Amino acid sequence: MSPLLYPLPAGNEVNAFVGLPLHHPSIPTPAAVIDLSLASANCNAMLAAVSALSVSFRAHVKTHKTSQLTRLQVGESSKDVRLIVSTVIEAEQLLPLLHDYIRAGAKVNVLYGVPLGPSSVSRLANVAKILGRDSVTVMIDHVDQLPALHQFKASAGFPARVFVKVDAGTHRAGVGPSSPQMKGLLYEILSMEAVGDLTFNGYYSHAGHSYDGNSPDDAMSMLKLEIDVCRAAASHAPAHAFKEKRVVFSVGASPTALSVQNLQSEKVSGNAAKSLQEAMLLDPASFELELHAGVYALLDMQQIATRARHFDGDPHDAIALTILAEVRSLYPERERPEALVAAGTVALGREKCKDYSGWGVVTPWRFEQGEGVGDRLIVSRISQEHGILAFERNSHRNLSLSVGQKVRIWPNHACIASSGYGWYLVVDSNSESPDEVKEVWPRWRGW
Amino acid sequence: MSPLLYPLPAGNEVNAFVGLPLHHPSIPTPAAVIDLSLASANCNAMLAAVSALSVSFRAHVKTHKTSQLTRLQVGESSKDVRLIVSTVIEAEQLLPLLHDYIRAGAKVNVLYGVPLGPSSVSRLANVAKILGRDSVTVMIDHVDQLPALHQFKASAGFPARVFVKVDAGTHRAGVGPSSPQMKGLLYEILSMEAVGDLTFNGYYSHAGHSYDGNSPDDAMSMLKLEIDVCRAAASHAPAHAFKEKRVVFSVGASPTALSVQNLQSEKVSGNAAKSLQEAMLLDPASFELELHAGVYALLDMQQIATRARHFDGDPHDAIALTILAEVRSLYPERERPEALVAAGTVALGREKCKDYSGWGVVTPWRFEQGEGVGDRLIVSRISQEHGILAFERNSHRNLSLSVGQKVRIWPNHACIASSGYGWYLVVDSNSESPDEVKEVWPRWRGW
Repeated sequence: MSPLLYPLPAGNEVNAFVGLPLHHPSIPTPAAVIDLSLASANCNAMLAAVSALSVSFRAHVKTHKTSQLTRLQVGESSKDVRLIVSTVIEAEQLLPLLHDYIRAGAKVNVLYGVPLGPSSVSRLANVAKILGRDSVTVMIDHVDQLPALHQFKASAGFPARVFVKVDAGTHRAGVGPSSPQMKGLLYEILSMEAVGDLTFNGYYSHAGHSYDGNSPDDAMSMLKLEIDVCRAAASHAPAHAFKEKRVVFSVGASPTALSVQNLQSEKVSGNAAKSLQEAMLLDPASFELELHAGVYALLDMQQIATRARHFDGDPHDAIALTILAEVRSLYPERERPEALVAAGTVALGREKCKDYSGWGVVTPWRFEQGEGVGDRLIVSRISQEHGILAFERNSHRNLSLSVGQKVRIWPNHACIASSGYGWYLVVDSNSESPDEVKEVWPRWRGW
Repeated sequence: MSPLLYPLPAGNEVNAFVGLPLHHPSIPTPAAVIDLSLASANCNAMLAAVSALSVSFRAHVKTHKTSQLTRLQVGESSKDVRLIVSTVIEAEQLLPLLHDYIRAGAKVNVLYGVPLGPSSVSRLANVAKILGRDSVTVMIDHVDQLPALHQFKASAGFPARVFVKVDAGTHRAGVGPSSPQMKGLLYEILSMEAVGDLTFNGYYSHAGHSYDGNSPDDAMSMLKLEIDVCRAAASHAPAHAFKEKRVVFSVGASPTALSVQNLQSEKVSGNAAKSLQEAMLLDPASFELELHAGVYALLDMQQIATRARHFDGDPHDAIALTILAEVRSLYPERERPEALVAAGTVALGREKCKDYSGWGVVTPWRFEQGEGVGDRLIVSRISQEHGILAFERNSHRNLSLSVGQKVRIWPNHACIASSGYGWYLVVDSNSESPDEVKEVWPRWRGW
C-alpha cells in the first residue's frame, strides 16, 4: 500500500505546536494528548511484571499507532521485539522502527491480529521480505485461510509463522478449543508445516469478557482461562506435533495482562492468584508463555472500570490519554446546569463504560472536580461534533466553567477515541511545565 | 489551518482504483462506497420538494465531507448556495467549490453549525474574507459567545451573520425559546446589530428526537415543532427588531426534512400534514422558512428506521452509502453459524439503530439475503477492526459466505461510519457495470 494513500501531517506544521501550553489559542481542538510520564510508567510496569514472571511479551500497537509509544512498550534495549497490529498499514508504518531494532541486534516479529484474508497476503509478504525470515506471523482460525499461505511463501520466499486463534468463549475471532474444527485445522496446519509451507508458532487467545470484570481476581481468573483454552486446543494436536519445538501460548487482553502486575503485589493473594500461578506453570521444554496487551500503555475509563490492577491513589490518575476540548456554551437555564464542548463522537468515540453512563469524564485539569464518583462532571450526551457536560448526579451545583475554557477528558476507550486524530500532543506531568507540548507524534490511520 | 495538517490522499494513487470492480483484489478493504445514482436521486428529491414548497434550503456537508456530493446537494445551477459545516476545516475545504459558484453568479453562505468558540473565529473570519460579505454565518446560544464577534469583524472587515440556536427540547445545543436567557440574548444581539457588529439572520432549530420517530406523521410533527420553537423565540424579540428585514427560521433534521417530501405525495394526508402546512404559513414580508438537512443525501439504517418518508419498494434500496468488507472467517461450530468480517468500530461506527440490535446490515449485493426484517444477515457484535456476522433470528441457516468474499454493509449512521475513510469509491447502480468504480472522491477530515 502506498503511504500516499494515508499521508501523515507535515512535520513542520505539527511541530509548530511544540513549546505552547495546551490551553494556548493556537492549539487546535479537539486534540488527543498523551502524558509521557504516565505512558512510560504504564509501559515500564508491564515490562517489569513480565520480566519478573519470566514470560515473553508481545505489545499491541493498535491503540496508539505510533512508533514512539511502540518503543516505550517494547523497551529501548529489547532483543526480542514482538508486536501485534490490527491493520496491515500499521505493520508497514512500523518498518523504520523495526529496522532500528534489527540494526541493534534484535529479533523482530509482527503478528497481524485479524484472521488472514486473501487481500492482506501480498502486503504482509512484502513486509516479511523486508524484515527477513520469521518476522511475520498470521492468525488462522479456519482451513479456508490456509491456501493464502502458499501465496505468502511464494511472495516472501519463506513461510509465514502461524498462530491458531482459540475462542476463549466470547465468540469473537477464534475456533473452539475442543471443536471438531480445531482438530481438523490443527491437522491441516501440521501437514503444511511438514512440507515447509508454514511455521507453526502456537495458540493465541483473548478473553474479551475480561472487560466485564470488577476485581484483580476476576482478571486473573480470565487470564487463567486464556491459558486453559490454549492448553485444551494443544491437547488435540497429533502426538508428534510438539516434538521439535516450543509451542507458544499467547494470552492476554489489557485487563488480564494488567492483572499479572498484581502477582508481585503484596496486596493480592488468595485463590485466583494461586490458580493463575499454577496455570502459568508450563513445561519450559515444550511451551512458552507469551503475554499480549495494548490498551494498558495509555489506559482509559474502560480499563480502570475492570479494577484489574491495584493502583496506589486514584487509578484514573494513571490514564495517559486525554482529549482536549473547548467549552463552547453554558446552559444554566436547564433542569440541571449543562455545558457544551466541541468534541463529539468523532473526537471521543461512542464506547460504553460499565462504571457510569457517559462518554467521558472531565479530568481535574484546570477545573475543580467534584468529590468523587457520582459527583464528577461527565460527557452525558454526544453528537457527531459536540458533547453535553453535566454532573453525574442530577446536581444543581454550578458548573464553574466558562465559554472558551479548555478541558481535558478521560475517554472510555482509548483505541477508538484516538482514531479520529492525525497526531498526539505529548506533555509531561512530571516536568516543570506540565501543560507544555513537548513533542508531537503523528498517528497512523487507514487499513 | 494549514491543509498540510490533514493532507488528502494523492490523486493518482486513489484514481488507480477507477475502472476496477468493487470485489477486485486490488481494492483495499474496508472501503466506503457511494452509489452515484442513489445519492443523486436523494439529493434531487430534496431539491424538488423544497422547490415545490417554495422554501429555502441549506445543505449540511458533515455526513460526506466532499465537494462532489455538496454540488449534488446544492444543484448545479443554484444561485443561492447555503451550506452548514460541523467543523471549520469543512468550510476551508469548501472554498474552491464555493468560488466556482460565485464565479457562476451565485450568492454563497456557510454556517458553522457548532456554537461559536474563541478558537474558531480567526479561521472563520479568514474564510469570510475570501468569500466576501455575508458569506459566513455563526451559531450563537450564549451571551458569552458574543465578544468573539468583535474579533470576527476586525479580522474579516465586516460583521458575521448570526443565527440564534433554539433548543427544540432535546437539550443538545440551543437556548430555550421562552427562557429568560433567550430574552437576554436577543436583547444583546439586537444591540450589537444596531451598531453594525453583527447581522442578525434568524433562528435555527434541530429536533434531534425526530430520530426516535416511526412514521411520516411523527417526522412532520417534529418539523412543526422546529418551526414552533423558532416562532416562540422570535416572539420575545423587541418590537422593532423585524422592521427592516426578513428573519429566517432555519429548521430541520434529516427525518423532519425528509418528511416534507410526503407533502407532495398522495399517500400522506391527515392531521400531521395539515398542521405542518399551517405552521409553514409565515408572513413572507417578515419571515423566510429555510429547511436544513444532511444525512438525507446518503441515508443509513437510522434514517430508514424513522420511516419519515414514503419510499416505493424497499426503503433500504435508497441508501447510497455502503461499507465494503472482506469475509475473513466462518464459524459453523458455534451455537448459530457466524462469520467474521475485517470491519469493526473504526470502519462502521458504533451507533445504534432502533430497528434492530446490530451495527450494520449486509446488503443483497453478491449475497443471497433472507426474506426480510428478522431474517437478515447483520453485524451482530463489533470490535475495533472486526465484526461478527449472524442472522438476526437465532437461525441455524447456512450463511452461504466464503472466506475472501466481499460483502457490502448498510451502516447505522452514515456520518460516523464514513469518518474513518480517506476517500469514497463511487459506483453507479444505474450503469451497465454497476460494480465498477467510476470515480474516487477524497473525503476531508480533521477539525
